[in-house]
Amino acid sequence: MSGFKFKHILGLRGLSRQEISFILDTAESMKEILDRPIKKVPPLRGRTIVTLFFEPSTRTKLSFELAAKRLSADTVGISKAMSSVVKGETLIDTARNIEAMRPDIIVMRHSMSGAPHLISRYVDSAVINAGDGINEHPSQALLDMLTVREHFGTLEGLKLAIIGDIKHSRVAHSNIIGFNTMGAEVVVCGPGTMLPPDIEAMGARVARRVEDAIDGADVIMALRIQKERQGAPLFPSEREYAQKFGINARILEKAKDTAIIMHPGPINRGVELSPDIADSGRSVILEQVTNGVAVRMALFTLIFAEVS
Amino acid sequence: MSGFKFKHILGLRGLSRQEISFILDTAESMKEILDRPIKKVPPLRGRTIVTLFFEPSTRTKLSFELAAKRLSADTVGISKAMSSVVKGETLIDTARNIEAMRPDIIVMRHSMSGAPHLISRYVDSAVINAGDGINEHPSQALLDMLTVREHFGTLEGLKLAIIGDIKHSRVAHSNIIGFNTMGAEVVVCGPGTMLPPDIEAMGARVARRVEDAIDGADVIMALRIQKERQGAPLFPSEREYAQKFGINARILEKAKDTAIIMHPGPINRGVELSPDIADSGRSVILEQVTNGVAVRMALFTLIFAEVS
Amino acid sequence: MSGFKFKHILGLRGLSRQEISFILDTAESMKEILDRPIKKVPPLRGRTIVTLFFEPSTRTKLSFELAAKRLSADTVGISKAMSSVVKGETLIDTARNIEAMRPDIIVMRHSMSGAPHLISRYVDSAVINAGDGINEHPSQALLDMLTVREHFGTLEGLKLAIIGDIKHSRVAHSNIIGFNTMGAEVVVCGPGTMLPPDIEAMGARVARRVEDAIDGADVIMALRIQKERQGAPLFPSEREYAQKFGINARILEKAKDTAIIMHPGPINRGVELSPDIADSGRSVILEQVTNGVAVRMALFTLIFAEVS
Repeated sequence: MSGFKFKHILGLRGLSRQEISFILDTAESMKEILDRPIKKVPPLRGRTIVTLFFEPSTRTKLSFELAAKRLSADTVGISKAMSSVVKGETLIDTARNIEAMRPDIIVMRHSMSGAPHLISRYVDSAVINAGDGINEHPSQALLDMLTVREHFGTLEGLKLAIIGDIKHSRVAHSNIIGFNTMGAEVVVCGPGTMLPPDIEAMGARVARRVEDAIDGADVIMALRIQKERQGAPLFPSEREYAQKFGINARILEKAKDTAIIMHPGPINRGVELSPDIADSGRSVILEQVTNGVAVRMALFTLIFAEVS
Repeated sequence: MSGFKFKHILGLRGLSRQEISFILDTAESMKEILDRPIKKVPPLRGRTIVTLFFEPSTRTKLSFELAAKRLSADTVGISKAMSSVVKGETLIDTARNIEAMRPDIIVMRHSMSGAPHLISRYVDSAVINAGDGINEHPSQALLDMLTVREHFGTLEGLKLAIIGDIKHSRVAHSNIIGFNTMGAEVVVCGPGTMLPPDIEAMGARVARRVEDAIDGADVIMALRIQKERQGAPLFPSEREYAQKFGINARILEKAKDTAIIMHPGPINRGVELSPDIADSGRSVILEQVTNGVAVRMALFTLIFAEVS
Repeated sequence: MSGFKFKHILGLRGLSRQEISFILDTAESMKEILDRPIKKVPPLRGRTIVTLFFEPSTRTKLSFELAAKRLSADTVGISKAMSSVVKGETLIDTARNIEAMRPDIIVMRHSMSGAPHLISRYVDSAVINAGDGINEHPSQALLDMLTVREHFGTLEGLKLAIIGDIKHSRVAHSNIIGFNTMGAEVVVCGPGTMLPPDIEAMGARVARRVEDAIDGADVIMALRIQKERQGAPLFPSEREYAQKFGINARILEKAKDTAIIMHPGPINRGVELSPDIADSGRSVILEQVTNGVAVRMALFTLIFAEVS
């Protein structure tokens, strides 16, 4: 594809519809590898990928590591606990030091919005944002888009309802940008304390009630209540949250028969989703997880297609 | 071997003498690889093994990882600290999520008895129990049996004395089952608070005094005092434990001249074993560790012989 | 090179000038690999390297791991948190147990001076000291020497000024030994509480004032203030330390125009080094980091040239 180039993957902001489609196409071809008995291919043999996670993570880190290994790359990980950051080193110095060991890609998660963008200006390695503060989580939105596209054949003209803590959710932000770019409509709904004032400027319509948000929606994405990211609680109790914003069978009567249920995980069962809905045939949550590996394999592959 | 099949390795309960022998034979052939300068062979190239350890571990996790790498598998690890379990996710959801990333084998340690059995019902991957609560630790018992069989040529007709905290020891439980199946006699001895009431139904005879337990024993297995697994202490002090149940030169005068000393490690020197005995020519403790790698290589190999 | 042999790399004490030169020559040839797009070569394929870090570390552990992977070795890591040491096992038992799993090399960091020397007497594997207490950190001094030799073409006849906590710095100790052996002059300077009484016997001259130390120096090495290694503070405040012992533009007017600035990292900016100096063209700090990978690749390679 001429004129197509990636180096860093910092966010979906600024990517064109054509570029996102190309990533999703590449991810689809990677997914085929995941269906083989031997899920390993050689394109990144001899390449080194450093995972630099300053926030705890199970699935995202595991997903990136598996994606790397299945492309035959070597991985080394640095977590906050072991890192020199505890010794008072600046983030830029940490990045420069890692860079001096000549990795090919740095995959970074950080609680500070903009941290991967910052280090990308100081290193020659490619930087992938694996979640920065409340800003973006591009690989998550890409795997969400891949999941929806596989299900409906397209993203254009669909209606996506995102329910929950929109304000603190980098997943929501990347999805609003990505689905908008692909021609889908995005409606958000959540407690007033969890809706940022500029959300309509980002391209999402605000619905007052969950019923309104999911009315006519093709995709219902429940966000995780990020207890660990908030200071003071932004809603009275989990029980009240579940009553007003939880997705359950009763609420889903308002949705299209064909609507699918998504969640970035890990689920608080009985809070964001009732257990029967989480486990229902409408849920594509585990498909999202599988697609995560495929999307990350695609990102790694596309970076090397460009860099090397 | 026709009709022989493994998928999950959850415990020794239910395995036949023929099956256990076959695992030990396979482990012996793996051990030959460990004597080469280059200890790596290709059968699991491209396979992915996830270690999921919810309890801390040095040697067991290291042993599984080395076994995997020496068969050319890729490994990724999840420990409790980094896992979503701290975020309130259920064990079944964690397992399903890992499964969605398409690993080939999940090696799991958990403080809850039955945890690996539970997840094995929800995943397509093979599950190996690396220790579940106070239930079983099958790979440990297999390495113990391999060590004894190498030493005596057979397990049949031998007498095994297990000394210590029988009640809370998954090592003891798997060994009682395994040695019984192989035709050995098992005698147990420990503080009254550490002997479960149903131990004779499991196939072990109870001896009141250590002297009685080791009288005529071919194998003396001292168990580790699991300080970290008990709530209230089950014996007055380490010193008193050592006096009544510790294995030392004086006690060993009652044993056969040919008796060997085992311990699953890590040793509390001067408690379960006197230092001179731990380091004596009778001790096969380090041979157990070497055999652990061989047994785990065998289990991985046999799973793929079946699954693939 | 006849008669040249390495097994363990425990310190620079006792290495000849010829031996150190040979390591540096080998590291230079390794560095060429780090400039390739694919930085991986096969000599250690099938070898297993265990990293055993009882103190936290980012860069040293990462550097050893990357060096191992780029030589195609397999690595497994044990950190203090997961280790059986918390369960009361002795260091020698831990070492013997790891040894029983048949690794090829053990890379060890420990807060106790002499710990790697101790275990080297109990294992057949090669042991590399990655920093032991306040004793030695040989791979750090080798990468420092490589960096200086690359810059000046030789070490002989140069003057090295080491500024800071000489007493508690294993980096300083290895560098004093190494640079002396190579024919360089070493001057040290630091707070009186940070100068050991026997430092002149080690081969370093003591300067009262930083100005005197760096007068005519070719290399100025600022040591990290090891807050985490001291009990009671050894100087009144960081600000006062910076005023008396910090390297800044004003102080550097006393140094040669050609003098270079080094630091083992991580830097406390504004304490040991002023930010402008850390980022100046005189600083070779990031070159040190790159050379660290090359030196560790050289050590691994030389060990196997001997052992295998």
